[in-house]
Amino acid sequence: MDKILRINMGGQGGPEIKTEPMGDYSGLAGRAMTSGIVSKEVPPLCHPLGEDNKLVIAPGMLSGSLAAMSGRISVGCKSPLTGGIKESNSGGQPSQVLARIGYAAIVIEGKPADDTLYKVFINKDNVEITPDNSLKMLGNYDLVDKMKAAHGDKIACISIGPAGEMKMSAASIAFTDMELRPTRHAGRGGTGAVMGSKGVKVIVLDGEGTQARSPKDPDKFKEANKAFTAGLKKHPVTGEGLPAYGTNVLTNILNEAGAYPTNNFSSGRFDGAGKISGETEAETETARGGNPTHGCHKGCVIQCSGIYNDKDGNYLTKQPEYETIWAHGGNCGIDDLDAIAMMDRLDDDYGLDTIEMGATIAVAMEAGLAKFGDAEAAIGFVKEVGKGTPLGRVLGNGAAVTGQVFGVERVPVVKKQAMPAYDPRAVQGIAVTYATTPMGADHTAGYAVTANILGVGGTVDPLKPEGQVELSRNLQIATAAIDSTGMCLFIAFAILDQADTFQALLDLISGFTGAGMTGDDVTELGKSVLKNERNFNAAAGFTAADDRLPEYFKKEALPPHNVTLQVTDEELDSVFNW
Amino acid sequence: MDKILRINMGGQGGPEIKTEPMGDYSGLAGRAMTSGIVSKEVPPLCHPLGEDNKLVIAPGMLSGSLAAMSGRISVGCKSPLTGGIKESNSGGQPSQVLARIGYAAIVIEGKPADDTLYKVFINKDNVEITPDNSLKMLGNYDLVDKMKAAHGDKIACISIGPAGEMKMSAASIAFTDMELRPTRHAGRGGTGAVMGSKGVKVIVLDGEGTQARSPKDPDKFKEANKAFTAGLKKHPVTGEGLPAYGTNVLTNILNEAGAYPTNNFSSGRFDGAGKISGETEAETETARGGNPTHGCHKGCVIQCSGIYNDKDGNYLTKQPEYETIWAHGGNCGIDDLDAIAMMDRLDDDYGLDTIEMGATIAVAMEAGLAKFGDAEAAIGFVKEVGKGTPLGRVLGNGAAVTGQVFGVERVPVVKKQAMPAYDPRAVQGIAVTYATTPMGADHTAGYAVTANILGVGGTVDPLKPEGQVELSRNLQIATAAIDSTGMCLFIAFAILDQADTFQALLDLISGFTGAGMTGDDVTELGKSVLKNERNFNAAAGFTAADDRLPEYFKKEALPPHNVTLQVTDEELDSVFNW
Repeated sequence: MDKILRINMGGQGGPEIKTEPMGDYSGLAGRAMTSGIVSKEVPPLCHPLGEDNKLVIAPGMLSGSLAAMSGRISVGCKSPLTGGIKESNSGGQPSQVLARIGYAAIVIEGKPADDTLYKVFINKDNVEITPDNSLKMLGNYDLVDKMKAAHGDKIACISIGPAGEMKMSAASIAFTDMELRPTRHAGRGGTGAVMGSKGVKVIVLDGEGTQARSPKDPDKFKEANKAFTAGLKKHPVTGEGLPAYGTNVLTNILNEAGAYPTNNFSSGRFDGAGKISGETEAETETARGGNPTHGCHKGCVIQCSGIYNDKDGNYLTKQPEYETIWAHGGNCGIDDLDAIAMMDRLDDDYGLDTIEMGATIAVAMEAGLAKFGDAEAAIGFVKEVGKGTPLGRVLGNGAAVTGQVFGVERVPVVKKQAMPAYDPRAVQGIAVTYATTPMGADHTAGYAVTANILGVGGTVDPLKPEGQVELSRNLQIATAAIDSTGMCLFIAFAILDQADTFQALLDLISGFTGAGMTGDDVTELGKSVLKNERNFNAAAGFTAADDRLPEYFKKEALPPHNVTLQVTDEELDSVFNW
Repeated sequence: MDKILRINMGGQGGPEIKTEPMGDYSGLAGRAMTSGIVSKEVPPLCHPLGEDNKLVIAPGMLSGSLAAMSGRISVGCKSPLTGGIKESNSGGQPSQVLARIGYAAIVIEGKPADDTLYKVFINKDNVEITPDNSLKMLGNYDLVDKMKAAHGDKIACISIGPAGEMKMSAASIAFTDMELRPTRHAGRGGTGAVMGSKGVKVIVLDGEGTQARSPKDPDKFKEANKAFTAGLKKHPVTGEGLPAYGTNVLTNILNEAGAYPTNNFSSGRFDGAGKISGETEAETETARGGNPTHGCHKGCVIQCSGIYNDKDGNYLTKQPEYETIWAHGGNCGIDDLDAIAMMDRLDDDYGLDTIEMGATIAVAMEAGLAKFGDAEAAIGFVKEVGKGTPLGRVLGNGAAVTGQVFGVERVPVVKKQAMPAYDPRAVQGIAVTYATTPMGADHTAGYAVTANILGVGGTVDPLKPEGQVELSRNLQIATAAIDSTGMCLFIAFAILDQADTFQALLDLISGFTGAGMTGDDVTELGKSVLKNERNFNAAAGFTAADDRLPEYFKKEALPPHNVTLQVTDEELDSVFNW
């Protein structure tokens, strides 16, 4: 992982492939790499679908090694959804494979001369890019099947569905899982549209003949990995809750807390929550011969994913995540798990961000296009997106566009990106993260649900403003660093609560790189990433006015706590004063 | 004109009407009034369709007097199209009538409890607001006919069509002309959507029993008005070109200059220009028993409007303006005058900004929804908007939204508002205005076409950057002042070239108000208006990054001059350093 692969789609006479040494980007990986390249090389005022934008795909620092949980991969670009910088990351197999092949980043740049669609094939010896218009408008599932038929089942794929080809702002990039299914996604911010604008349908990675990346200090690494794994296994969230029920363990918890956004963020409690909870989901999966405890990539010890079969026991989709179940479920007033799973499948197939799509359907419902709770209508909306009808194109461009097109005032977005599954009035720490992260409303950027709701990493009253800025600030810094390591963010539960597990992580990194890694180094890394991102956004025209929730969160009280946003503008503006 | 009418649509138990003294707004009128109230009373981060936005309608300083050309009226609000402050002004009769009734402004505020539609009736004695859902989704023509049937033909109407009711960002507010037809529009920036969000369909003004407003110094006023009128008549643009051919006299001139944006701003010259020029239009109108020389309001001496009949000699629409003919014509590759006139009629009826609609259709053509030149398809698109289909809702929200929904990169907007009929690469003075005016791309905000192309008010080479900033700055300041007087902007041709005509204008104002008015006073007024507007936009999150043209204007050379934007970012940022 000591070189950068550049593919210029705007080359004279077709795409040009070039391999470069790390240069300025030496030592960077994951989010630090993507935000480093984007902030340095992409003109902040360029059109996100134009020749000057770049799509950067970068495995994490430890990806490709034997470190547990190190399978995350970062995707960066200027976002067509927010207009700001974007890092969206995903699990799945490609991070490990790409890292073992040896690329620290793939940078896709320039603009193709016409609408020819390309396939990129990468193995340890070669990079090939070939035009293949037979792939046009294939769903991710059919596409991956086709790649499997051509290249065997030892590959891993990075691909877009029809939504990306249609350059929709809610289009995701799919990453295949251990079963070679396109179920893991860099969902947020329209990265799929940027890949589509570059004319790249799929990147096929063949790791044949590659080895796990070697640590500099094998003994230290091995020992740290053991301690780290043990730490994950002993924490109640990573060792019990997530394995048993997946991320959807949160439905009952958030609903109980009155923070579960229901019917387009009009209530914090959903009557149908029990029918779509993690407990119900796991039970359903088990009863149908699926599997509620499964990893999304090799080396995962948390196993928060699973397999969701239909009523006949046939594979339908991977276990839909909490955010997906909420977005297409409670936020649309829908309590039908099979309908939600069907939308998850369709989103994965078309290549769509499940959070953005669910939030968008709720806005469409608020506009009167369907009633809250109408699962059939909701599935129909997703299918419109796949077909690219005018309505589908609107919905596929997300909640903000849909709100404008249909004249809706209550549109829960920040920087035009839809809010995830935590009402910011009932989890005021996440309000700070939604408002201020350079990413647009994003729970993963600083998951204050920890101390606000879960009692992880301390306790901060979720309904009061006190302590939220500090909480969000520290989490945003830590997250920017973790997103650079290739580590799954869920390790945060254990490292926030268990000092020895945090130390094990530091030792793991030190053992791998051979350089020391202290807590202060982690903080400095996180700050440097955020600084690059904030600088890019400022140059793209973002100001404090963009670091705000929509005004109705200050005015409309959320039941059942009947609380409005309490954090002040001045407090929001102090998040990055470190 | 010494009081302000406030209508609170969010009152307990229904709309509340209140008349206030001028207070803080004493001495303000037109744009100075609308931008004064909006910048002081509207929270910059509010939702444009929400309860905190206000719609302000204000006649000009001299409106309602016998001063020639004083029939303009300003509409202000936070724009749903740009997200910034908006002043959009219109001709027609309402300004004179409202001023004579005595209101310096109507402020519509708050948010109605439900979707009941209201009619407002105002005469010298009374203001009535009544629910009338029978008006729902009426076109402006049918609506005005209905008002005429109810209130007689001495009224003037301010109204919205279906586009405003559907809260589309390209929705206009219609103002009736001398024939009581809804042909004059505050077109730009979606003011109609704000009126729609307030639930007000129409404001009926009945001037029965009112008198012309009296000047303080009748002799001075009368003499100045005479000199002012004579000055307009002797200038070749206001005395000859505009009366004979209307604003469409510009088609041949701009096309000849290679600055006529063709096929979505991809060329500066249109082969079909001769078929849609002002000369052809006037000839067609005369031949069909229409009229190429007609005013839009009483007291107009330029008479740049006209009557456009169809092939059978029946009234179709008022003489479509240059911008309209360009937008639906050359910019869409269409050279069929009757098709363009039909779109003008439909836009007026649905209540749509013709510039935004034409620019949007061209973007849709670039997206491949129809071929450039397909007039039937273009008419079909406008009808989709009227029907409010999903496609129509997209198009009715303007070029920026349409570009995003269909993944188009070449979208000619600034601050999300579509550029008018002058390619900024071939008229670099207008490039500065498009980029920097607080309004979004707007030719009327600082019409540098004067010195760049027409040789009015001096000469500045249109293809070079030198002198453009100063030209645009001075015109923006002067325009902000003129837009506050109620004067038609076309007086600028005469006052820029003829010192005695400018002096006559100053004397006219002095004679009317009784206070002195110097050239310096005009400049100070203009600067104060711009300052309010810039401050609002800054608080709404606008930065220098918003004072830019889309990057492709810097990269793609425009034929036939093969020129790109030459004005630098630094120069753009110096416009308001006065």
